[in-house]
Amino acid sequence: MKLWKKNIHLDEKIENYTVGTDYLLDNKLLKYDCLASIAHAKMLHKINILTEDEKNSLIAELETIIRLHEKGEFNIQKSDEDCHTAIENHLTEKLGEAGKKIHTARSRNDQVLTALRLYYLDNLDRIQSQIHQFQKTLKQKSRVFDGIKIPGFTHTRKAMVTSVDVWVTAFRDAMTDNLKFLKYVKKIVSQSPLGTGAGYGIPLKTDRQFTSDLLGFQKPQKNPIYTQNSRGKFEALVLSLLSTIMFDLNKMASDLILFSMPGLDFFKLPDEFTTGSSIMPQKKNPDVMEIMRGNYHKVLSLEMRVKSMMSNLIMGYHRDFQLFKEAVMEAFDVTCDSLNIADHVMGSLSVNQDVCEQHIDDEVCATEKVYRLVEKGIPFRDAYRTIAEEFHRGK
Amino acid sequence: MKLWKKNIHLDEKIENYTVGTDYLLDNKLLKYDCLASIAHAKMLHKINILTEDEKNSLIAELETIIRLHEKGEFNIQKSDEDCHTAIENHLTEKLGEAGKKIHTARSRNDQVLTALRLYYLDNLDRIQSQIHQFQKTLKQKSRVFDGIKIPGFTHTRKAMVTSVDVWVTAFRDAMTDNLKFLKYVKKIVSQSPLGTGAGYGIPLKTDRQFTSDLLGFQKPQKNPIYTQNSRGKFEALVLSLLSTIMFDLNKMASDLILFSMPGLDFFKLPDEFTTGSSIMPQKKNPDVMEIMRGNYHKVLSLEMRVKSMMSNLIMGYHRDFQLFKEAVMEAFDVTCDSLNIADHVMGSLSVNQDVCEQHIDDEVCATEKVYRLVEKGIPFRDAYRTIAEEFHRGK
Amino acid sequence: MKLWKKNIHLDEKIENYTVGTDYLLDNKLLKYDCLASIAHAKMLHKINILTEDEKNSLIAELETIIRLHEKGEFNIQKSDEDCHTAIENHLTEKLGEAGKKIHTARSRNDQVLTALRLYYLDNLDRIQSQIHQFQKTLKQKSRVFDGIKIPGFTHTRKAMVTSVDVWVTAFRDAMTDNLKFLKYVKKIVSQSPLGTGAGYGIPLKTDRQFTSDLLGFQKPQKNPIYTQNSRGKFEALVLSLLSTIMFDLNKMASDLILFSMPGLDFFKLPDEFTTGSSIMPQKKNPDVMEIMRGNYHKVLSLEMRVKSMMSNLIMGYHRDFQLFKEAVMEAFDVTCDSLNIADHVMGSLSVNQDVCEQHIDDEVCATEKVYRLVEKGIPFRDAYRTIAEEFHRGK
Amino acid sequence: MKLWKKNIHLDEKIENYTVGTDYLLDNKLLKYDCLASIAHAKMLHKINILTEDEKNSLIAELETIIRLHEKGEFNIQKSDEDCHTAIENHLTEKLGEAGKKIHTARSRNDQVLTALRLYYLDNLDRIQSQIHQFQKTLKQKSRVFDGIKIPGFTHTRKAMVTSVDVWVTAFRDAMTDNLKFLKYVKKIVSQSPLGTGAGYGIPLKTDRQFTSDLLGFQKPQKNPIYTQNSRGKFEALVLSLLSTIMFDLNKMASDLILFSMPGLDFFKLPDEFTTGSSIMPQKKNPDVMEIMRGNYHKVLSLEMRVKSMMSNLIMGYHRDFQLFKEAVMEAFDVTCDSLNIADHVMGSLSVNQDVCEQHIDDEVCATEKVYRLVEKGIPFRDAYRTIAEEFHRGK
Repeated sequence: MKLWKKNIHLDEKIENYTVGTDYLLDNKLLKYDCLASIAHAKMLHKINILTEDEKNSLIAELETIIRLHEKGEFNIQKSDEDCHTAIENHLTEKLGEAGKKIHTARSRNDQVLTALRLYYLDNLDRIQSQIHQFQKTLKQKSRVFDGIKIPGFTHTRKAMVTSVDVWVTAFRDAMTDNLKFLKYVKKIVSQSPLGTGAGYGIPLKTDRQFTSDLLGFQKPQKNPIYTQNSRGKFEALVLSLLSTIMFDLNKMASDLILFSMPGLDFFKLPDEFTTGSSIMPQKKNPDVMEIMRGNYHKVLSLEMRVKSMMSNLIMGYHRDFQLFKEAVMEAFDVTCDSLNIADHVMGSLSVNQDVCEQHIDDEVCATEKVYRLVEKGIPFRDAYRTIAEEFHRGK
Repeated sequence: MKLWKKNIHLDEKIENYTVGTDYLLDNKLLKYDCLASIAHAKMLHKINILTEDEKNSLIAELETIIRLHEKGEFNIQKSDEDCHTAIENHLTEKLGEAGKKIHTARSRNDQVLTALRLYYLDNLDRIQSQIHQFQKTLKQKSRVFDGIKIPGFTHTRKAMVTSVDVWVTAFRDAMTDNLKFLKYVKKIVSQSPLGTGAGYGIPLKTDRQFTSDLLGFQKPQKNPIYTQNSRGKFEALVLSLLSTIMFDLNKMASDLILFSMPGLDFFKLPDEFTTGSSIMPQKKNPDVMEIMRGNYHKVLSLEMRVKSMMSNLIMGYHRDFQLFKEAVMEAFDVTCDSLNIADHVMGSLSVNQDVCEQHIDDEVCATEKVYRLVEKGIPFRDAYRTIAEEFHRGK
Repeated sequence: MKLWKKNIHLDEKIENYTVGTDYLLDNKLLKYDCLASIAHAKMLHKINILTEDEKNSLIAELETIIRLHEKGEFNIQKSDEDCHTAIENHLTEKLGEAGKKIHTARSRNDQVLTALRLYYLDNLDRIQSQIHQFQKTLKQKSRVFDGIKIPGFTHTRKAMVTSVDVWVTAFRDAMTDNLKFLKYVKKIVSQSPLGTGAGYGIPLKTDRQFTSDLLGFQKPQKNPIYTQNSRGKFEALVLSLLSTIMFDLNKMASDLILFSMPGLDFFKLPDEFTTGSSIMPQKKNPDVMEIMRGNYHKVLSLEMRVKSMMSNLIMGYHRDFQLFKEAVMEAFDVTCDSLNIADHVMGSLSVNQDVCEQHIDDEVCATEKVYRLVEKGIPFRDAYRTIAEEFHRGK
Repeated sequence: MKLWKKNIHLDEKIENYTVGTDYLLDNKLLKYDCLASIAHAKMLHKINILTEDEKNSLIAELETIIRLHEKGEFNIQKSDEDCHTAIENHLTEKLGEAGKKIHTARSRNDQVLTALRLYYLDNLDRIQSQIHQFQKTLKQKSRVFDGIKIPGFTHTRKAMVTSVDVWVTAFRDAMTDNLKFLKYVKKIVSQSPLGTGAGYGIPLKTDRQFTSDLLGFQKPQKNPIYTQNSRGKFEALVLSLLSTIMFDLNKMASDLILFSMPGLDFFKLPDEFTTGSSIMPQKKNPDVMEIMRGNYHKVLSLEMRVKSMMSNLIMGYHRDFQLFKEAVMEAFDVTCDSLNIADHVMGSLSVNQDVCEQHIDDEVCATEKVYRLVEKGIPFRDAYRTIAEEFHRGK
């Protein structure tokens, strides 16, 4: 039975269309919803809505649900719509009155927001650990590859001399900036929505600071209208972070694809990392890097989806917002997988030092030649023109 | 065993990341791949690569695979990578030599393209039928609602008198334009890629016209490089069509949401089509229309995904292209479901005629007043100013 | 004076913000608006709103405006808001009564739509001619480069042998498909909106077929609500076409950038087409191709702008739609310039035949080796494995 | 003369296409480029490349250029390509040797990056001030409107009671979160690129900390490859911030458009803020809010442009990156204008208190009724069902 059920049965086609796969996605949220409900029960007891016994039985049953769900023994049915309903129904069935009281002082709107934000925060922590691990690998590799010269490129043409450790460290520094972004996003997301109801508060004196603290949020999000308005906005921020991380991996993948191309061959992936062709027997293809490159666009499109979907709408909840859930979940999964693989690939990367050295030719050293003249006191632009003419004549 | 397998085992993490859910998505393609392989076998027989017996046994076995798959008895394993490999492995196991010959004169690149285009064409036909059905419903409804006056809006404000049948017919006309777009997209997609190999042809004399005809394509796509370059481009076209259709549904949904809002109330959805609130007992919410409105953005983001993912890459296949598959499949499913629901909703829509009439007030009729003056010979701009002053004074 | 001006002065800041640069963009529309007004005047005479004299004086004055504007002597002021107002004000000033009558039986909404569509159709013709010219160049070049072998690539690695003429022809075929898309878009855009007013018709008997014919539209767009709803939708279609064309140029540019990279060097652009570096004296950079590659994304983002801007809004005009104008105009200009340059570049391209030949090595010919075995009767998959082992051992 | 000019004249068409309007956009950068060059000259003097006299004359001349440019007397020609070239040419012409030395120890790549980031930081400060001003207005207005009840909406339907001050404060809180985002973006952007050359350092001992400090950056961006890789990435971050701000304005505009619609009428904009219709004399349209709503999509599309344009490319500069400039500049201008107007509109907003009160009806108070029962000890879900039945029967 749905939370809002009156005496009318929802048309089945309509139900299938509106619920979609949402009840399945909610398997990722169920734990967080139970944790939030436990905090909420404690608060309801504090403000004398629940008795001590009711509170304790609710907590016990909610913990049971978490365990059952972990073992695959608590299922969310399509007819439940979502995990929130499945849980409330279960509580009412098991506990009677106490179950009917658990929804006091909240709406499904703030309840969903709370579970989502707890899920986001957990996943942001997961991303953070993965970035730390990736940076550790990059640091090791920059030592291993220290001082190995390769040509740096501009305009997809060899430009000047650089070295592999500088290339590796570029991604480590990129991740350092990303960690700062992540820290900001966590700060913003870490505002407790619980108790803002459907965006217009609850006509009852509650203790929002209490649940915020219990759930580990930095603070309650005070304004209930802004709380609803930030649905979509906060998701968009999370997605901006994820697409930023994926952009750095897109760049790394693009470099690796070109720089392991026969003819350049600076880098080498283990044979177990490359795939073949069904028709061309000689091929070793960098598919893993191509999928990583492509996945940037997947995450980017999910960011755009939320940012366009949330627009041109007035205050308050709209059911369109349900669709944000899939977008963020997909993006978290793709980004986590990609960081994992980026770490795996970089950890296994080797450098063809001989090949790299052969590529450090006259052209790549042209700028250094200019600076040898500069050191002799020739103004830069004159030195530049002198060397440019040399090259021009040489051709 | 993969088609390109040499003596190296692909790293498991890498395999999981690159294959992703692709082998599951391929359940939608398997039938089309078998059909294409049947046509291909006939062609190989025609050019004397296959004996009559080999051809016949291949055709029989491919038909068996289709039947087994329909009954859920033919599964694509992750280690197969995709349906193409699962099928070739099955054929080789069952038929030996003949199985090893089926991949002659094609690459997995053109094989995948062929299966995908057959899948697209089938789904475009499905969309076409749904549009026809939707238009039928719209036609009926425009008769039922004929002449019921409602205010037309500009700038989200009542503007001039219009009628419900004109509103309904607007969507019918929109769908007529969409059908023309669909016809163009089908024409473009209906080019057979089979026989272009990996984008550089097959070093063997084949008969591409023959397989093109057998598979019902309008013609073979002649240039093998363009054939590969059109991967992504054709998907983007399909997605442009789907997002165009979804845009019209987004508009329809936006109209229905506002015009069934208490206070305007022109339209009424059956109670079985609306949902309630977990906290507000009085609510009847148009969730189905909101999901439809939101789904436009889902399809739009899938279009953008392909259009950004396919960019900045040189000629020929890149593994990134595998990710197009999920995007197009999701978009087809969402659009088909949405058209289906749009038809269901419009078929059940009723109009509150009394309410509509009450909204036809002085303001809405202001322009008609202007034209009554125009008919008396007063220049339009003077008539306009006369009526404008009336309104201005009246306020 | 604005068309809708009553006794209130629009706040200046608000005016600046809402009008923006729209009055400047309207310089591209002014001619079309005059042509549409001429047709409209003829219709108003036909239905007896204008006398013969009024009609003639209006036509004469409108033709004068076109001539003045061409000479830079007719300016649209910010206080006019747009070209439509500037024109009506001018007519009223010059002709009195007749000027005040010209706006009979139309709204600025259908008036703008008419001018825009005439502008689109003209620009679509311009694009069409440029594509024809580009295809001519491609045809010539495919003859010049006929049979020059180059390696085809998959996964950014050399794959199989192809030839320069096949590469050139790929873009010619791409443009042929684009021309079909263009034809469809022209057909859709070629629906006359004139006479649909603000989306709810005109309370006067008019002759829409007459103006449609005079202006060269294929037919009047019958449903006035759909006419307004198609604002944005038709723009999005035009932009889909333009981004599709730009995608092919993005691919061509990507190929040219990589294949003219020292080390591959298949292609050569004239020195006058490349640019240098401020620090590296040896560099010859393919900037022109990079700008072309980047411009795909400019057009793509303009397409997305319209497609997201037009969403989640109810029927009828909204001022947001004004912003479509800039998007389409920018996209037309970029696409026209890019086609022009693509033609210029391809016309000047030369091939380093010697270098190309050196790249046709054993690896690139591996598939051909497989097929030599196939011709001897060895099943494809066995032949493939034989050659694959050869390569594997050789490494 | 271009900085990289050898003996070849760039083809004129190619030049027009590649330079585009970039030399005009550079008018916004010229001042920052001069300031960066002054700091650079001081550093070159510190490391003994420039004499005291050379340094002083360069500084004096660069300050002169800033002054001339402010007065419109220093123009960047298309043939200069950009402001950097125009400046270096001017310096060389005026100062000879010293001018030819100014480009020592930098490339145009890091030079452009430096000027751009200084421009971004200045504009971020401008945005910050505007947000502060907007928040001040919102604070005042929340006091003026304190306690005026209006219905809050969910699903575009009246839901529960809220008040105008809560609505106003929602946007103030939104801006507070945005200020935190802005602070993060400033921190990231405030990394000095000067001295990283073309992404591969300068073969000369320089003092990057010195110029970083002189220019007020928080620190030098250490890794030269990451410095180039962050072109696009940092722009994307700036654009994410701007689109986030614009999203809040899009929401505010959407609210104002609907809630000032005749029939709801909670809010009233001064007549000087609304515009009329060319055909409907009664109309007062909220065009300013519609343009604001639409401008969110403009900024969003510019964000997407950069995020898709910068993808799938290897390390180092590509000329495509030039196109980021226009995108960021347009977005800054639109966002600044919009914040300015948002402040102007909110400062002038009035509330129709009588109308608001009439809208606080039984339906809007249904949830409060539920909570009166909850206060009497009835479990929430039972109380909810009791009130729901009342409404159901009442209909």
